Amino acid sequence: METKRSEQNRALPREAAVVVVGAGYAGLAAALELDDAGIDVVVLEASGRVGGRTLSERDSGGVVIDHGGQWVGPTQREFLGLAERFGIETFPTYLEGVNIERWVDGSQRHFKIAGPEGGPGMGEYLTAMAEVDRLAQTIDLERPWASPAAVELDGETVQSYLERTVAHPGARLRMALAVQSVWTVEPRDISMLHFLFYIGSAGNLDQLMEAEGCAQETRFVAGAQEAAQRVAERLGNRVVLHAAVRSVEESGGGVTVVTDRGQVRAERVIVAVPPSAGRRIAYEPQLPLSRRRWLAQSPMGDVVKIHVSYGRPFWRERGLSGEATLYGDSSLGFVFDNSPHDLSAGVLVCFVYAERLRVWRGRGKDGRRQEVIDTLVELFGSEAAEPLRYAEKDWAEEPFIEGAYAANPTPGTWVEHGPAGWREPVGRLHWAGTETASVWNGYIDGAIASGRRAAREVRGAVGEQ
Amino acid sequence: METKRSEQNRALPREAAVVVVGAGYAGLAAALELDDAGIDVVVLEASGRVGGRTLSERDSGGVVIDHGGQWVGPTQREFLGLAERFGIETFPTYLEGVNIERWVDGSQRHFKIAGPEGGPGMGEYLTAMAEVDRLAQTIDLERPWASPAAVELDGETVQSYLERTVAHPGARLRMALAVQSVWTVEPRDISMLHFLFYIGSAGNLDQLMEAEGCAQETRFVAGAQEAAQRVAERLGNRVVLHAAVRSVEESGGGVTVVTDRGQVRAERVIVAVPPSAGRRIAYEPQLPLSRRRWLAQSPMGDVVKIHVSYGRPFWRERGLSGEATLYGDSSLGFVFDNSPHDLSAGVLVCFVYAERLRVWRGRGKDGRRQEVIDTLVELFGSEAAEPLRYAEKDWAEEPFIEGAYAANPTPGTWVEHGPAGWREPVGRLHWAGTETASVWNGYIDGAIASGRRAAREVRGAVGEQ
Repeated sequence: METKRSEQNRALPREAAVVVVGAGYAGLAAALELDDAGIDVVVLEASGRVGGRTLSERDSGGVVIDHGGQWVGPTQREFLGLAERFGIETFPTYLEGVNIERWVDGSQRHFKIAGPEGGPGMGEYLTAMAEVDRLAQTIDLERPWASPAAVELDGETVQSYLERTVAHPGARLRMALAVQSVWTVEPRDISMLHFLFYIGSAGNLDQLMEAEGCAQETRFVAGAQEAAQRVAERLGNRVVLHAAVRSVEESGGGVTVVTDRGQVRAERVIVAVPPSAGRRIAYEPQLPLSRRRWLAQSPMGDVVKIHVSYGRPFWRERGLSGEATLYGDSSLGFVFDNSPHDLSAGVLVCFVYAERLRVWRGRGKDGRRQEVIDTLVELFGSEAAEPLRYAEKDWAEEPFIEGAYAANPTPGTWVEHGPAGWREPVGRLHWAGTETASVWNGYIDGAIASGRRAAREVRGAVGEQ
Repeated sequence: METKRSEQNRALPREAAVVVVGAGYAGLAAALELDDAGIDVVVLEASGRVGGRTLSERDSGGVVIDHGGQWVGPTQREFLGLAERFGIETFPTYLEGVNIERWVDGSQRHFKIAGPEGGPGMGEYLTAMAEVDRLAQTIDLERPWASPAAVELDGETVQSYLERTVAHPGARLRMALAVQSVWTVEPRDISMLHFLFYIGSAGNLDQLMEAEGCAQETRFVAGAQEAAQRVAERLGNRVVLHAAVRSVEESGGGVTVVTDRGQVRAERVIVAVPPSAGRRIAYEPQLPLSRRRWLAQSPMGDVVKIHVSYGRPFWRERGLSGEATLYGDSSLGFVFDNSPHDLSAGVLVCFVYAERLRVWRGRGKDGRRQEVIDTLVELFGSEAAEPLRYAEKDWAEEPFIEGAYAANPTPGTWVEHGPAGWREPVGRLHWAGTETASVWNGYIDGAIASGRRAAREVRGAVGEQ
């Protein structure tokens, strides 16, 4: 949600020990860490709100809707720690009832736990998952390019790997949906090295894809943006909104950060924005080639979240969890129960990813909505036909972000430009953002970890001129 | 070379029927075509010169050095036609004498024509080339995404394809050098679809790699930039240098093109810059998603040209052509005789590509030069030890271009964003640049063709408000 801060159009301070670019979780965590240490910090945010790829709004029915990142899991200690510090209320994701799997032919199957006998190719899918998990354990999370066989792994797309190692077309389809839902791209778009790194970064594939004990276990009563807003309140007038950074110029023992509304001089700068935004800033002197290439070769993923609200979660009454997995006859990939903690409404959230998203976007506003509602009726019955509210959030259209959940380096990029380009400081410039995290890369947790890591890099240097 | 125009700091006209962004061959060809038709056109160029990825300079010895694109071949009718129109003098590439092949173990072999018995893996390499040529003929050059098996081809890297289909490691090494020298990336960086499209776009692999009857057959006496300069002279004060375009804003039945030095209002705009520059421009309204993604997912290749000059082409006296192919114990990939037409010097040009370029860059200025000279001595004898002049040109450091020869869409990008993002006009905006060409994509010839195609798109529309 937009904060009152956006209305103040606060003037920029002339100087600060550290300027942080971007008030997503990475930038805010960096600034909080520095503020805790008594270091003078200013956060410059391009948009009218904090929170980056989290966005929690109350809809016209007063129900909290998380348009962006929304979950936290038990191994995400950075995010849990920050939420606990600010007394943020959580509640468990709804996991009762049976799930629905809808196959490519439109057939629907109800199940509680997906076992080897679960559906077409399920046995081979689970075997392939186990092998991928085994490979992911070989990745060096601090230096992915130095992992065994890194050059070979970064030269093969996940699609080629699946064609080479997974015979059952159903198992390949399942693996493809795993890639679409976690990386928000197609298997052809990413290399095995990035795929395995990301899995290793989370722990294993279950951590990425499951709820119980995993990344989707817990939700936030007031939405996942709340902790960001609390940090921003704590930092007070050191967070400046509507201050898009146009250039970052290092000279004469300091850095000048130029925005449309004036400039700030700092000893150090932490750039905590997605690669899509990082490459739009003009750097003087020019960044080293590997950093430029890293930014240029890390396109954002592509996902839309659609929230459909009803008077109550009627599917629960029929023993359904609200979770559905859809393999291709509809644009939707996954559906989950996203009802608020107080059950003041029944809310389903639908995810559309990558290739199916491109098709769905082309249908026009009415066609898109119609397809979503039709699919929900087929999954959950005729009560789904008359929602109270319907909201789409297309992250590709969000200025300064341009996609979600995260950026995925293209094949070859990790081994070619990772060593010097991933997150190595450049003079007085330091890099944060979830894409620079070793643990829970791509998640809010990784964003916070990256901000704290960048703050630690800076702490030793500031004041030691 | 910089033109006198750069010193004039000419004022921008307030309006034009058409504004062309970029004075490389694409933009100049577009402007010339429009000017020929009596349409009022202005070309805005960010740098202090025209010619884009061509740059012909006289060195301190008065010898013309082509730091960028330099050759033309007999099927490149667009470039030949333009050169002929302006009476540009050409001369044949020097092809007498024997070539040197240096293998990974440092062993050197002399040969005139590379036959099946030519060296490690040569037989299988030629077979693989023929198969690739066959596949390239299946590509639809106007709609690569609609070619047979396009989705599968765009999901497999060239590296995976070679591992799957070419058994002999030597043959794979040969194919890898082909990729490095033509696409200036590693086989892992590009998909089979882009690889095959590019080959089909040129005709076949020989067209891309050979001289006689092929793309490297002919050179320009005054350098390959000359025709661009002649076009610019013809256009006179309608070419404005040092006018970097920051934003392109379509509104009220026209387009406002904003530079650091003021703005120009136009009916139509042709953006004729590499994707690296195209994505730095701010568009209002925002470009359609596919066009944005196409730009974001088309990173530039990576190549350096090094010119080493001697008093005379001494290697010719020993029956050597000056051409050498190096497979990996040196940073150099290819060496050619690049002596001027008047033989006022003997010049060798060395190409360093992709991965080996990243290693070589890291050696520092003296180390880089030392390695080049040492390699030339090993290839051509001790006379190579004492050059008169030495010049490096790293295209990754060129502002507004950031790499060479061309941009390569990453795996998946052709099929995902090609249909709507490749070159489809957006409102009053049209797209040129060699990356938008169907024939000789990536070459000067394709640049000219793309500019003329964009001019034709515009011609029908201008004045029909």
